[in-house]
Amino acid sequence: MKYKYAVIATDTVIFTLREQELKVLLIKMKKAPFENCWAAPGGLVHGDESLGNAAERNLYETTGVKDVYLEQLYTFGRVDRDPFGRVVSVSYFALIPSADVKLKTTDAYEAVRWFGVSRLPQLAYDHAEMIPYALERLKAKLEYTNIAFSLLNDEFTLGELQQCYEIILDRKLDKRNFRKKIKSLNLVDSTGHRRTGQAHRPAMLYRFCDHNYQVVQIL
Amino acid sequence: MKYKYAVIATDTVIFTLREQELKVLLIKMKKAPFENCWAAPGGLVHGDESLGNAAERNLYETTGVKDVYLEQLYTFGRVDRDPFGRVVSVSYFALIPSADVKLKTTDAYEAVRWFGVSRLPQLAYDHAEMIPYALERLKAKLEYTNIAFSLLNDEFTLGELQQCYEIILDRKLDKRNFRKKIKSLNLVDSTGHRRTGQAHRPAMLYRFCDHNYQVVQIL
Repeated sequence: MKYKYAVIATDTVIFTLREQELKVLLIKMKKAPFENCWAAPGGLVHGDESLGNAAERNLYETTGVKDVYLEQLYTFGRVDRDPFGRVVSVSYFALIPSADVKLKTTDAYEAVRWFGVSRLPQLAYDHAEMIPYALERLKAKLEYTNIAFSLLNDEFTLGELQQCYEIILDRKLDKRNFRKKIKSLNLVDSTGHRRTGQAHRPAMLYRFCDHNYQVVQIL
Repeated sequence: MKYKYAVIATDTVIFTLREQELKVLLIKMKKAPFENCWAAPGGLVHGDESLGNAAERNLYETTGVKDVYLEQLYTFGRVDRDPFGRVVSVSYFALIPSADVKLKTTDAYEAVRWFGVSRLPQLAYDHAEMIPYALERLKAKLEYTNIAFSLLNDEFTLGELQQCYEIILDRKLDKRNFRKKIKSLNLVDSTGHRRTGQAHRPAMLYRFCDHNYQVVQIL
């Protein structure tokens, strides 16, 4: 693949919370020189689709997931980043609720699976830069937006919400201050019922009042 | 120009301060349907150059300027954004000190000139989105980084520094608080000499201690 001009791909860093850990979805490459490497899923942008549509299509082809939080991250364009030709990558990051996702393999990939962000395998292209970049953006946005709604299931306890913050930010938060702040912002509503099948005092379940992205200082 | 896959261009929103105004450099288009429109300068990325190099080359070809502040902004990719073909644009913004710039026209452009950001002409492509996007980024970075060093000449009075902030943010700042904050951050050094040829009490000239970008809360 030689191009007179650079062609463009999208790559999407997909995060979810599972097993008390922030995980990222990676696909295993087949072709040399990346035959033992993993990468964030992606592909070339077609002549007739927008960047966002290309990222959505690719996400759907890899995970069967659609209508999730998807945001443009950064465009990577080093000349030698792709040994197969002059491909520039517009990176995105996506957030998927912790509910199960059915992963699909395609002809292009050998395998697809979730990795804890602190235990990543060897990565192809410049994805060893891309994934930490996405993680920094996620951490920042967790502090000043309501983006957490994209990672939690519809109903959650305040303890689970705090845990979501603590896992991603990798630090403990004061329970009392956290609850006070969350309640004062009117971001969440009580559902009126409690988590059943648990300890002697089941916790109240909440939901986000609004599933639209908004800028709001949380921490 | 039909492409099976999208090709990629860079476009650069170039700001400077002149005549007490924030200005942006625009080039006048020749070809229909944009023959009366202006645009931020840009062009296709060659097969052998990085995105940053393409933006630098293009900036130099248009303005004769190099080694200025240049930052990636956002990648625009609507399918119909360019009537000439499927071109995705990685936008950049550049800051040029208020010292004179020699503008050059090329075969591709009819004219090149500075426009006040509040009085823009009709714009080609999606540049009516791109320029306000760049302006918002500049405003934000003025508050939490030392980016102003890229817009001022080497030596300036604290009054000129404050004016730079006031013009771009489009609001008045308290002189006493502003000076106190700037001095407390150790961002600027006195040069030891004063602006001559002015009123009866010439103002002290300062320079930035460091011309490397750094994150620092200024306002």
